[in-house]
Amino acid sequence: MITLPQGFRLAVATADFRDKHQDRRDLALALSDVPAVAAGVFTTNLFQAAPVQVARAALEAAGEGAPSFSSPRAMLINSGQANACTGEAGLEDCLATLDMVGAAVDLPASAILPASTGVIGARMDLGKWRVAVPALAFSLGHASLEDFARAIMTTDAFPKLSGAEVRLEGGPVRLAGVAKGAGMICPNMATMLSLVLCDAAVEAAAWRAMFRRAVDATFNRVSVDGDTSTNDTLIGLANGASGVRAEGGDLAVLEEALTGVLGDLAYMLVKDGEGATKVMHITVRGAATDADAEAVARTVGHSQLVKTAMFGRDANWGRIVAAAGRAGVNFRPEDLRVSLCAVELFRDGRPTDLDFDALLKEPLAGTDLALELVLGNGPGTAKLLASDLSHAYVSLNAGYRS
Amino acid sequence: MITLPQGFRLAVATADFRDKHQDRRDLALALSDVPAVAAGVFTTNLFQAAPVQVARAALEAAGEGAPSFSSPRAMLINSGQANACTGEAGLEDCLATLDMVGAAVDLPASAILPASTGVIGARMDLGKWRVAVPALAFSLGHASLEDFARAIMTTDAFPKLSGAEVRLEGGPVRLAGVAKGAGMICPNMATMLSLVLCDAAVEAAAWRAMFRRAVDATFNRVSVDGDTSTNDTLIGLANGASGVRAEGGDLAVLEEALTGVLGDLAYMLVKDGEGATKVMHITVRGAATDADAEAVARTVGHSQLVKTAMFGRDANWGRIVAAAGRAGVNFRPEDLRVSLCAVELFRDGRPTDLDFDALLKEPLAGTDLALELVLGNGPGTAKLLASDLSHAYVSLNAGYRS
Repeated sequence: MITLPQGFRLAVATADFRDKHQDRRDLALALSDVPAVAAGVFTTNLFQAAPVQVARAALEAAGEGAPSFSSPRAMLINSGQANACTGEAGLEDCLATLDMVGAAVDLPASAILPASTGVIGARMDLGKWRVAVPALAFSLGHASLEDFARAIMTTDAFPKLSGAEVRLEGGPVRLAGVAKGAGMICPNMATMLSLVLCDAAVEAAAWRAMFRRAVDATFNRVSVDGDTSTNDTLIGLANGASGVRAEGGDLAVLEEALTGVLGDLAYMLVKDGEGATKVMHITVRGAATDADAEAVARTVGHSQLVKTAMFGRDANWGRIVAAAGRAGVNFRPEDLRVSLCAVELFRDGRPTDLDFDALLKEPLAGTDLALELVLGNGPGTAKLLASDLSHAYVSLNAGYRS
Repeated sequence: MITLPQGFRLAVATADFRDKHQDRRDLALALSDVPAVAAGVFTTNLFQAAPVQVARAALEAAGEGAPSFSSPRAMLINSGQANACTGEAGLEDCLATLDMVGAAVDLPASAILPASTGVIGARMDLGKWRVAVPALAFSLGHASLEDFARAIMTTDAFPKLSGAEVRLEGGPVRLAGVAKGAGMICPNMATMLSLVLCDAAVEAAAWRAMFRRAVDATFNRVSVDGDTSTNDTLIGLANGASGVRAEGGDLAVLEEALTGVLGDLAYMLVKDGEGATKVMHITVRGAATDADAEAVARTVGHSQLVKTAMFGRDANWGRIVAAAGRAGVNFRPEDLRVSLCAVELFRDGRPTDLDFDALLKEPLAGTDLALELVLGNGPGTAKLLASDLSHAYVSLNAGYRS
């Protein structure tokens, strides 16, 4: 059971954006009753959905000064309609939903950060919003973190939540995070959304910096299929409602907890990647630089050949070695060492003499596979979580009619 | 029926490198009876198989002067054993096979360029070579281009050949090319091998330059799965046996024919990519530079989401647009135009109003799909051939036990 940080309330409702006439929640709101500092990380795709443009602008406008009642302290997520590739009209629709929800829960529209996931290229149905928003407002304070996590799901197989409580000098503070899937979203793209709530009191600049670093170390270190959505959004809100200040050495304690929560969520995203049966925990060490190590980790983690080999439970050192060798990174081939589930596969430019099939039969049947590459070329390291590539991935992504 | 250029002889034999005890040819030799100029393009992977290292060194040693009888004028290919990741011993094995074959067909070993494809990490079985080489020598001059193309196949579904005859100022000259598969090769990697024979008389430097450009425009513009093998090798031999010189304006005529032959072979590689059911002919126009256009073409062509959509016959403009948007290339999203099989899908930042399902049902059932992206940002263009991603790809690559 993950505790909701103090000073936050959650709400969910059913708008039936998917026209399925099911009582499935598809609208979710989280808000802080007091001013909060807000951090955001967004898709790097050139195509940015209307809610991404609006949320990004709101965070910029708020700046890094002390928060006011009208600066961002809420996040509103709808699933089923992505409001991407909808032009100027899409921006107006997005602002209209913020006005609607703001009026219903007594928040300035500028305090609400929007995010959407679902079908792209189609306008949102504001009629459905009008019907659902009163129910959303009514549920405020009655929804749980799990309700919230379920309402933002699309093709996710399970809700994704994580939380932490850490003791700072002034007392305990709480963090809670929810996320939705890195798999392909109906109908067009992977959308990844996440929200982390925190009741510590922290300066805006410090919160934003630690959020950015924590995202870099976690969400930016996963690979499902290498595609990037128009809607990817991660938001972090810290409202100080615990009355405990995070400053000085406590900042590092808070950042570690934040990184842990985001790391849990990122792991769940990979595990729930479409059709995924395995999570590869790739570690690259001994590169000239961290950037080199990351390039090798990404090339191995993105390789369709490595991914299918893992799905097939095959200790295919040749595909791993070949992927490392084409990463555009310089190292001496004879220095490379590769281990899978702690069994050394490759060393001195050739496979080792171990009986891979016998040693790895059991480990490769598991879900979590540790893959380590050592380049022998310097101090650079990187980690990456990557899914495998299965028949189910092809079925899910070829079977869909856009 | 493709004509063998003058002055060349071919040979094939069965060495049973795969231990299948079938009468399947797996050893092939092409040689010019007169000195030839030779060009080579090799894998860029840091891991280079022994035959790649040997062939590359032989071409370097030959330089770009007039060829002698001992400079490279033959190519020897074995399929079944890749001789990659075999260390110093693998280099010695490779040189031993050149000595063996050279002695049997009366060629200096330095005149033979080796290439291998098959299982990596294992030593070649020289005993099998010793048994097969006399038969190889015996067949010299009796094997056809198709025999050669079949002997170098691994998981290829069909032999790949193309030829051309062009009239230069001095008379006609002939080109003939063979290639083997870009699909995954037993057990570990995609290996792509190709040989082009030409009977025009051309300076070494001019031949090497046009070969490099022709490869860049063809083999370097295909995407099956983005992986690069330790053994990829393309060789071009021009022996002047026609007595017709290619110089001045004729060089461009010859280059065009060479590009055509390599283009045919590259197309066949994509069509026969493992599990491929479609060939996307991707054209990107209107980029700031050709490099930008190529980056967009590669990101779209490599996208697992776009590949699975094509397999699923789905006009999924969202995946195409999102791939273009994450290519790391700058353009205005609202300027992008996307057409699939000549039907405009996307324009002015949103999908067009056409009925994609009705218009594209028939075209998407075909094998060859034209996909055009116009960025509206400059004169840069690029073309790329890419395969789709099917269930059969996953089966072939997950099912194999290394």
